[in-house]
Amino acid sequence: MCHLLCVIFSKVIKCKAAVTWGKHQPLSIEEVEVQPPGFREVRVKMVATGICRTDDHALHGDMSNINYPVILGHEGAGIVESVGEGVNDLNPGDKVIPLCIPQCGQCCSCLNPHTNCCLKTHSEPQNTMPDKTTRFSCKGKVVYLHFLWTSTFSEYTVVPVDAVAKIDDKAPMDKACLFGCGFPTGYGAAINIAKVEPGTTCAVFGLGAIGLSAIIGCKVSGASRIIAIDINSSKFEKAKLFGATDCINPKDFSKPIQEVIIEMTGHGVHYSFECIGSTDIMKSALECTQLGYGISVIIGGAPANSHITFDPYLLFTGRTWKGCIFGGWKSKECVPKLVSDYLANKFNVDGLVSHTLPFNRINEGFELLESGKSIRTILLF
Amino acid sequence: MCHLLCVIFSKVIKCKAAVTWGKHQPLSIEEVEVQPPGFREVRVKMVATGICRTDDHALHGDMSNINYPVILGHEGAGIVESVGEGVNDLNPGDKVIPLCIPQCGQCCSCLNPHTNCCLKTHSEPQNTMPDKTTRFSCKGKVVYLHFLWTSTFSEYTVVPVDAVAKIDDKAPMDKACLFGCGFPTGYGAAINIAKVEPGTTCAVFGLGAIGLSAIIGCKVSGASRIIAIDINSSKFEKAKLFGATDCINPKDFSKPIQEVIIEMTGHGVHYSFECIGSTDIMKSALECTQLGYGISVIIGGAPANSHITFDPYLLFTGRTWKGCIFGGWKSKECVPKLVSDYLANKFNVDGLVSHTLPFNRINEGFELLESGKSIRTILLF
Repeated sequence: MCHLLCVIFSKVIKCKAAVTWGKHQPLSIEEVEVQPPGFREVRVKMVATGICRTDDHALHGDMSNINYPVILGHEGAGIVESVGEGVNDLNPGDKVIPLCIPQCGQCCSCLNPHTNCCLKTHSEPQNTMPDKTTRFSCKGKVVYLHFLWTSTFSEYTVVPVDAVAKIDDKAPMDKACLFGCGFPTGYGAAINIAKVEPGTTCAVFGLGAIGLSAIIGCKVSGASRIIAIDINSSKFEKAKLFGATDCINPKDFSKPIQEVIIEMTGHGVHYSFECIGSTDIMKSALECTQLGYGISVIIGGAPANSHITFDPYLLFTGRTWKGCIFGGWKSKECVPKLVSDYLANKFNVDGLVSHTLPFNRINEGFELLESGKSIRTILLF
Repeated sequence: MCHLLCVIFSKVIKCKAAVTWGKHQPLSIEEVEVQPPGFREVRVKMVATGICRTDDHALHGDMSNINYPVILGHEGAGIVESVGEGVNDLNPGDKVIPLCIPQCGQCCSCLNPHTNCCLKTHSEPQNTMPDKTTRFSCKGKVVYLHFLWTSTFSEYTVVPVDAVAKIDDKAPMDKACLFGCGFPTGYGAAINIAKVEPGTTCAVFGLGAIGLSAIIGCKVSGASRIIAIDINSSKFEKAKLFGATDCINPKDFSKPIQEVIIEMTGHGVHYSFECIGSTDIMKSALECTQLGYGISVIIGGAPANSHITFDPYLLFTGRTWKGCIFGGWKSKECVPKLVSDYLANKFNVDGLVSHTLPFNRINEGFELLESGKSIRTILLF
């Protein structure tokens, strides 16, 4: 009955959103109309959202197939405002995280224990809902969704029910939003993808929120040595706080950083993580792993149409190269558990937040990201 | 006492060997001198040897750091003729397989359960013994060892004790030699590296002895569909005999073979195996695997200094790219067990042998390999 009432009384909402009108343009805070949730959709009142590097890629046209105007943002936390027909597991008032990778539970990926790449996801970037329509408009124009469906840079957003997870009511929303992308992505790469073993050595390239989360994963897994690499040495203090044992800046060496790491470790590291999205660094990360059993994980999304050239002998001699989206977590099922683990102090993500700003200062947040000054900026609505 | 006598009475042996005097030259059957085994070395009277693609690469200068003249060959079976000091686990008369990858048992790779890439191996090709000397001479000239130490194209060879395994006395030597390279390499790639699961789909590129052995591994693992790919359709009959369910020839299609495989399977295969050593095919093999959980294994050794250019998005979206030498088997420990499994009919490798020739017709064996007419030619001494 409650669901039915929600559906009946759910109306178009007018609210503020940060609209991106075209490539390389600053985001513009506009009044937008947000439609009611459709069949198996949920409308969410956003409470907090992070700004992730992928949003910056989309802003600068480094993602293919993005239509403008668009509402970006995919790392948010909010409260269910209303639900559409066919939604049985969520109710208005529930605290939720929109999921940048869905979990439909029915496709061959969802049924396979080895992957989280739900086939309802966006292997081909698309910035409409699954039915090819959007839920936003502004000044009479259609506004497209974030290609990951979530569009968290808006006071209200609409997401498919397969792309939203209910979390513990006790979760602080200004931190919980990190569970929408950055933290699970880096942490899961260490836990689920590399499957870091105790007593091993790890190298983490790039010390943003994802890289630091990878360090947390390595530390929780019992790695004995964690080498953190960044061209911005100001990030080393935090890396050490999260568990890095060595911090190195490629600018301090005349030789390639992979050679430095091999010298530091004897034969290279057991595991490496690329947390930037640079093809050159992906290659360095592979090369610095140990012959025979080194595993390198690509976490950063490279710009569209980029390529890597490498010597296959690196793999032939026993190394493994893999990658993951969202840390390999089956999202709807695992995000609530991760939030509970956080509330149970299994790990602490609070230090990932370097800046907190009101939503309307979103462009400052992007500047902090682009200048390398921030780890994660959280916008509060 | 027996060991001591062997050491004392072991003398230089004169015998026939196939010597490669330089790149692109036919092998020449010559009388060579074979020195007694040194400390922790074993001299073996060869009974049978296969001709592998890697020997052909070495013959044509596609391996770096090969010195000439050299005695090639690395897939053999023989009988211990004498042992050097410090050899405690082998005696004259033992049936053995020289190992193209050693197992010293002491290095960090040997102590790690995830790799067989013993650090005493030849990550840098070198064609002398570990002490930088050889055990062969011919017409007063030093003759170098195969870069894998084994030099099985000789009636007698000398190998380090860490690079030779004792096998069951009941093993037929004309088949047992396959356990020196081809069979474990392909079979292990499926069993140990891809870890093929029951009910899955596999694609095997290249239907020589290694590719067919990979098919055996997929079949033994319970794969439900095994797609065999070769540009020589005459190999399909044997592939089906070993377990292939579909055989396709890229020459029969106008589109890239990876697209054909994706269409055949819906979303791509669970596992693919490159058994040729072609960088183009390594890329096709990766591309034909399923987004999210596809695993592609490089088994073929690419020519020295070759490179692959690929789109990292293939890995970012959850695929895994790996490779292996000798199928990931810890050699000295596992080869005897594999031979026992063969004797217990766990699998049948007999069909891998397409031709048997007397040793002195070795050049005919290479012609059969190069023309694509043979699967494996075995030379009998």
